[in-house]
Amino acid sequence: MSEASQTLDGWFCLHDLRTIDWTSWKQVPSEERQSMIHEFMDMLEAWQEVEDEEKGSHALYTVVGQKADLLMMILRPTLNDLNEIENAFNKLRIADYTIPAYSYVSVVELGNYIPPKDGSDPTENPEIRARIYPILPKWNHICFYPMDKKREGDDNWYSLPMKDRRELMRAHGMTGRKYAGKIKQIITGSTGLDDWEWGVTLFAHEALQFKKLVYEMRFDEVSARYGEFGAFYVGNILKPEKIESFMHV
Amino acid sequence: MSEASQTLDGWFCLHDLRTIDWTSWKQVPSEERQSMIHEFMDMLEAWQEVEDEEKGSHALYTVVGQKADLLMMILRPTLNDLNEIENAFNKLRIADYTIPAYSYVSVVELGNYIPPKDGSDPTENPEIRARIYPILPKWNHICFYPMDKKREGDDNWYSLPMKDRRELMRAHGMTGRKYAGKIKQIITGSTGLDDWEWGVTLFAHEALQFKKLVYEMRFDEVSARYGEFGAFYVGNILKPEKIESFMHV
Amino acid sequence: MSEASQTLDGWFCLHDLRTIDWTSWKQVPSEERQSMIHEFMDMLEAWQEVEDEEKGSHALYTVVGQKADLLMMILRPTLNDLNEIENAFNKLRIADYTIPAYSYVSVVELGNYIPPKDGSDPTENPEIRARIYPILPKWNHICFYPMDKKREGDDNWYSLPMKDRRELMRAHGMTGRKYAGKIKQIITGSTGLDDWEWGVTLFAHEALQFKKLVYEMRFDEVSARYGEFGAFYVGNILKPEKIESFMHV
Amino acid sequence: MSEASQTLDGWFCLHDLRTIDWTSWKQVPSEERQSMIHEFMDMLEAWQEVEDEEKGSHALYTVVGQKADLLMMILRPTLNDLNEIENAFNKLRIADYTIPAYSYVSVVELGNYIPPKDGSDPTENPEIRARIYPILPKWNHICFYPMDKKREGDDNWYSLPMKDRRELMRAHGMTGRKYAGKIKQIITGSTGLDDWEWGVTLFAHEALQFKKLVYEMRFDEVSARYGEFGAFYVGNILKPEKIESFMHV
Amino acid sequence: MSEASQTLDGWFCLHDLRTIDWTSWKQVPSEERQSMIHEFMDMLEAWQEVEDEEKGSHALYTVVGQKADLLMMILRPTLNDLNEIENAFNKLRIADYTIPAYSYVSVVELGNYIPPKDGSDPTENPEIRARIYPILPKWNHICFYPMDKKREGDDNWYSLPMKDRRELMRAHGMTGRKYAGKIKQIITGSTGLDDWEWGVTLFAHEALQFKKLVYEMRFDEVSARYGEFGAFYVGNILKPEKIESFMHV
Repeated sequence: MSEASQTLDGWFCLHDLRTIDWTSWKQVPSEERQSMIHEFMDMLEAWQEVEDEEKGSHALYTVVGQKADLLMMILRPTLNDLNEIENAFNKLRIADYTIPAYSYVSVVELGNYIPPKDGSDPTENPEIRARIYPILPKWNHICFYPMDKKREGDDNWYSLPMKDRRELMRAHGMTGRKYAGKIKQIITGSTGLDDWEWGVTLFAHEALQFKKLVYEMRFDEVSARYGEFGAFYVGNILKPEKIESFMHV
Repeated sequence: MSEASQTLDGWFCLHDLRTIDWTSWKQVPSEERQSMIHEFMDMLEAWQEVEDEEKGSHALYTVVGQKADLLMMILRPTLNDLNEIENAFNKLRIADYTIPAYSYVSVVELGNYIPPKDGSDPTENPEIRARIYPILPKWNHICFYPMDKKREGDDNWYSLPMKDRRELMRAHGMTGRKYAGKIKQIITGSTGLDDWEWGVTLFAHEALQFKKLVYEMRFDEVSARYGEFGAFYVGNILKPEKIESFMHV
Repeated sequence: MSEASQTLDGWFCLHDLRTIDWTSWKQVPSEERQSMIHEFMDMLEAWQEVEDEEKGSHALYTVVGQKADLLMMILRPTLNDLNEIENAFNKLRIADYTIPAYSYVSVVELGNYIPPKDGSDPTENPEIRARIYPILPKWNHICFYPMDKKREGDDNWYSLPMKDRRELMRAHGMTGRKYAGKIKQIITGSTGLDDWEWGVTLFAHEALQFKKLVYEMRFDEVSARYGEFGAFYVGNILKPEKIESFMHV
Repeated sequence: MSEASQTLDGWFCLHDLRTIDWTSWKQVPSEERQSMIHEFMDMLEAWQEVEDEEKGSHALYTVVGQKADLLMMILRPTLNDLNEIENAFNKLRIADYTIPAYSYVSVVELGNYIPPKDGSDPTENPEIRARIYPILPKWNHICFYPMDKKREGDDNWYSLPMKDRRELMRAHGMTGRKYAGKIKQIITGSTGLDDWEWGVTLFAHEALQFKKLVYEMRFDEVSARYGEFGAFYVGNILKPEKIESFMHV
Repeated sequence: MSEASQTLDGWFCLHDLRTIDWTSWKQVPSEERQSMIHEFMDMLEAWQEVEDEEKGSHALYTVVGQKADLLMMILRPTLNDLNEIENAFNKLRIADYTIPAYSYVSVVELGNYIPPKDGSDPTENPEIRARIYPILPKWNHICFYPMDKKREGDDNWYSLPMKDRRELMRAHGMTGRKYAGKIKQIITGSTGLDDWEWGVTLFAHEALQFKKLVYEMRFDEVSARYGEFGAFYVGNILKPEKIESFMHV
């Protein structure tokens, strides 16, 4: 029986992906559409205030391909906060013109965490705070995917000694470090919260960097032998001032 | 051929998850909505009376993310009782504004049970009664997932000698015990009743404990080598007095 | 190359599961609903006549959980008979208020059958007739699931010598025999007819016996190493005189 | 690296399965229904003319169970022909009362084909022509399923030497030969055309022969170790003169 | 830990597959249909201008079978361009009569790329430019499928030394070269962009060549041991002048 790694956990996270029902949306009179868009933008503004006060964060992206049209990623202190937000969105009139496409529930996580020996509270450490309560970057592109560590025959992550797991993760981290400045990565843990064990959210200035990073990492032993990946969602930032033209029909 | 473990079984259990069709619900005149909500609350009251008489129990939670909006967990003496309850719900007017999201049929189970040597009736033992006919706690959060024990190549739970299975489960139980007071766990068996072999329902005051427990347990040999997990549903308690505001549009 | 087992085959079998569209059903005026129910009951009566003449048999159960609401199991001499029955059902007005949930096509089978050495016709043997042309019991509960025998790596049922397969099945049969009087089992073969190799239909007075039997059998080597199981459907008998109240809204 | 087998390929093949939307169909006035049925029968007559000129062939069967109601199997010289046919069907009024259930694109194939040493054109050989440009039999029952050859661990068909593959296929063919006169088999190849590597279409006078053949073949090493099977569709012949009564509501 | 291969990447690529909702389309008055078709053709013309200026490329094919009716393959410099194009399509009136069937996001890729030793910019090399910014051929048939390289037990592509991977890919390329002039192949990489690691798009004058190539390649060790394949979509070219008759009802 291997020793479990410790994690330090921060804000809860909801990825909420929606497909727009363009056919119905086109049938709404133009003025009503306008009013619905503004209602949605008011909600985004309220979210922005929360972010400005560093009590949460969020990101809004469009999604390329048919998997979804919109990706909202929302960070908040509790599961209740996230539930309230999704319900508030569902109660907006504009929500009637969206179709649920995928969602993911997780919590921002610092993996392989070693508690400070002096017994100090790590959440008082500003560097650590910035990692577990992150303000999401407003970069051009997003890439989200859930993943597991494999437990199949000889490739069983959870049966490896902690020392080996640490070494494999360290080497993996070295690959990631090459992309500093090009990709910002948020790891959220979801064991016991959703269907995969982790969510990975990447932000990039250039979309090609997602492919370069994920492809290069696949050769790391930790991915090659132990990684199992769900669906990948990629998209482009949707700034508030672009929402009207995006929704214009 | 390994010896089968014995179980002691109690109430039958139905997990019934529903998505709310907010778009249609908004179109219902406010007064009618009110009346439908009260009809539902009358049903909940009737369920509460059953619980007060210790002839069954139930829990009502909202679900975070798009998998569902409501989770009803219902315990009753027979499959017929459960079927009557789901049919009664379906016949409520409010049910027309919900969409089936997932359901699970199982029975509360005491696993690896060793019958008393004095031949006494275990269901007369108050401690055992409390475990197989449990009154569900009204804690803040719920986590439900179904699971199997693996039968793949060298990792075949059902080919292990009973002694080994007992030892693995004992160690697993030790991990669980660390969470006493933080997590309450109800195990329901479903071999021959539904698509997985067990349902696991966890209740917690703090949602983060679900992740901590399930993650730590994944390193137990019994999970690492033999556990196979279905979808995870997590949510927040929905007390009767909050139903109106939850359904308010 | 292993020798194929022989089977003796009887009536063809259709499991037809339907979900009731309660929302639409409620909108039908009460008198029309009544008339549709009677139309359905007339069909059931015609089926009963066939059963009384021992030219077929059928069972009608409700299903617990969201997988379906009704399970019709129908035995007839030919595939054409079954197709006619399902089409006749679909043409009933009440069928418009049901949604197909699952179906399964198979044929009642006596497995590992050894033809009599005296060359006599086994279908003249009353004991054998009763097994391949069975009149379905009207017991309280039903459990239906399809299954395969595994062909993976070292666990390849179809590569085992017939002698070993027989021995494994014999031991499995011993487990089943313990449940005599508590469970009645109908095995239908479906290789070449539907997506799994067998359908298993169990009838019980007490639903808990399904769990006890299937769980205990899972420890038999034939299930532990070679069994692969599909979805499980469990339900309660729906006697003709209860249909009206079941459908009442 | 194993040597690839050669194949000789004939007509392209489309299996097009449809479910009838009985609920909508019932709402069509009787005369219109009649006119739509005749439109469809005109199309079938045109197909028959193609078959009479030996420029293609087709089969029309009903399907037992909920997977579909109709199975059209169509053979034509080119993919363009097949696309035209499916589009023409979709443009019929009756198509509005059918729901796509499954389709499969493939090409009639003579596997393990050895080109004649005298360099003669095999498609001039009448026996070979009859096999790659087959007129489909009008037998009582049909069985269709797609399949793959496994590439898993030690069970990797495509890594076997051609000699071994031939020997395994030869033995498999011997099993098939026992069913001569009882079952007619059309093998269509679909590597690079659809999701499985082959389609298998069987015709029989008695439906039980499907089960007997496919079950017996499963013990052949080529199936036991290397066969992977998709969904099975079985049905009954629908002769033109029976279409009206089949569609009558 | 194996060394990652380098790739040279060109245009981003969207495969967008749609099913036509013929039933609704038939209800549109003929003149409106005409006008919607022209709107779509105007968009195609604009795409053609982009292609003429070598700033992108596209292909339009019909799809055989029920998986889809239309396949649009679009190449553009950025993910934003692709997102704009799909949104513009969705905002067309004709889009209301199409149903999303499948989509795939990737980027044209030159695999196992070795950067020039003289440090020159490869994208200045016309031969390389033609490969990473390809103008799609207007050949009769298309075949699209996504694929992965396996990471299972002993068959783990990402654990192979780069030398072995190169040798396996070289041998694979030799098989492909036999089809020069018969098949044109575009490889797009999608690790980190969509659910599979690569998209393969083949163009052919004769559809049978898809089967011949993909079947022959399956015996290459790289496919036999390491290839995992998604769904296959095949179709026929839809030239602008044929759109009206294709859409005519």
